Amino acid sequence: MSHSKNFSIDKLAGAVKEKGNVCIGLDTALEYLPPKAAAAYQSNSEAIYAFNRAIIEKTLDIAACYKVQIAYYEALGLKGMETYAKTLTFLRERGAISIADIKRGDIADTAFRYAQAHFSGDFEADLVTLNPYLGMDSLEPWLNEAKKHKKGAFVLLKTSNPGYKDFQGAILKDGRLFYEDVNEKLALLAEREKGESGFGIFGAVFGVDGNYKPEKSACSAACPAPGLFLLIPGYGAQGAGATQISGLLDKEKGNAVVNASRSILKAWKLKAPDSPDAQDATIESASLCAREAALKMRSEILSA
Amino acid sequence: MSHSKNFSIDKLAGAVKEKGNVCIGLDTALEYLPPKAAAAYQSNSEAIYAFNRAIIEKTLDIAACYKVQIAYYEALGLKGMETYAKTLTFLRERGAISIADIKRGDIADTAFRYAQAHFSGDFEADLVTLNPYLGMDSLEPWLNEAKKHKKGAFVLLKTSNPGYKDFQGAILKDGRLFYEDVNEKLALLAEREKGESGFGIFGAVFGVDGNYKPEKSACSAACPAPGLFLLIPGYGAQGAGATQISGLLDKEKGNAVVNASRSILKAWKLKAPDSPDAQDATIESASLCAREAALKMRSEILSA
Repeated sequence: MSHSKNFSIDKLAGAVKEKGNVCIGLDTALEYLPPKAAAAYQSNSEAIYAFNRAIIEKTLDIAACYKVQIAYYEALGLKGMETYAKTLTFLRERGAISIADIKRGDIADTAFRYAQAHFSGDFEADLVTLNPYLGMDSLEPWLNEAKKHKKGAFVLLKTSNPGYKDFQGAILKDGRLFYEDVNEKLALLAEREKGESGFGIFGAVFGVDGNYKPEKSACSAACPAPGLFLLIPGYGAQGAGATQISGLLDKEKGNAVVNASRSILKAWKLKAPDSPDAQDATIESASLCAREAALKMRSEILSA
Repeated sequence: MSHSKNFSIDKLAGAVKEKGNVCIGLDTALEYLPPKAAAAYQSNSEAIYAFNRAIIEKTLDIAACYKVQIAYYEALGLKGMETYAKTLTFLRERGAISIADIKRGDIADTAFRYAQAHFSGDFEADLVTLNPYLGMDSLEPWLNEAKKHKKGAFVLLKTSNPGYKDFQGAILKDGRLFYEDVNEKLALLAEREKGESGFGIFGAVFGVDGNYKPEKSACSAACPAPGLFLLIPGYGAQGAGATQISGLLDKEKGNAVVNASRSILKAWKLKAPDSPDAQDATIESASLCAREAALKMRSEILSA
């Protein structure tokens, strides 16, 4: 019996210290690929897989991890799910840490089946994202499976869309924000189940938008709690920059990864949208642009 | 351009009037199948598909609809997803109404991709279940796609697990329960977007357990709101009976379907767990037991 406390979250904390805070989001839609290059493949799924592979190869040394957004693959049906599985397998083969952005949330035996689905088999990932709305008991089957497979999760604490205010931002009877309560429950869980890095084996998704000011936090206790390793989406295309994010980062502890998807995947296009270069972009040149964008993002975060 | 307001929810309201309130849950795990019968198939996925087909064939005239819980199929990887797609296709071919129990919830373009995934293509279903935690804006891409494809959804209002109290049952500043606020927002949405049956094209999941007493509702306004067509899980294996559920049903309007999964799928086993009959159960005999269980459930609900 293994007594190792080396969970996915511990590996990720190590990767952040070595490579920085960048998480590359593989929310890969066909229209994010250079069209001429994409057309050379037999199917859309094959083109997307080739693009993912190239991006991964070119960024392995500078990305702490990769977040694969399953919705983009589900949208392509069975072929898309095959591409999703192949992308996760490729990440594993190359020694990269994968986050399956699945935002699943269900109860009892159903939650257990989901955990089986995403911590083992064709769709195995190192970490998943989870929705806590059904209650803390809905996380328990995931915790059991995570402990068995040394995996982990990021639980939604606060998202970066304006509508987060509807429910996550509701005010409770005692004056706390709804998500403060989620934060406290997740902090207790992280205290109960932690890995050798000191972070809870389940961390949190904490989204920020362009208006976020950490010094103006509306919460009474530390939110997000320091025991929670963070996945911060919203960088780049969703409007948050290094300034908004810097207040959440503890550079010494290496407590967070910051995700960018479109600003990296579409870097070839954003760079020079009307130039002949962009028209003639190849998968090779697009992945080099992605590397450049990831490097730029890494140093922006480091120097903020 | 079609001006029809015949959405999936309208078809479902019609099916309830014709066939009663039973929704059969195809949360089909391998261990719910008669083992000897299952062993005759080349793969687990083939056995599960054959079982699903048999159950569907034997209950088409008495079930208002079928709810397919995707977690059980995701757990089997790519083969499982193929079985999931084939089950939905079979339901469509036989003219049955399908609910994809996916509880997805995400924002912006990601929500749009999910809606594409589950309202068209390999995973096309008539209705889906959605998690509203990310905010009302996270439902908009689903609404747009639902209107385009004449589909619908059930949004989680209250679930049947004890942990629903953690978040759905939290008390807000103004004294309302958290899920009352969800109810009000969903009622407004249903008023804004309704079909020819008068129900909103998006209904609600309203779970009850064995202790539920509708006359003791803690809510000030009608909850669930009368404009919301309901998907009520929790019948049978999860502890709720016809008595708990009857207070939620409007028999004249035909406003709800009641889901049972395990008590129907495993009826062959529950009937006589130690008898030689159960040991020798075939897919044919198991599906006949399922029909019996569904008939019994239907009359229990009707007479409550």
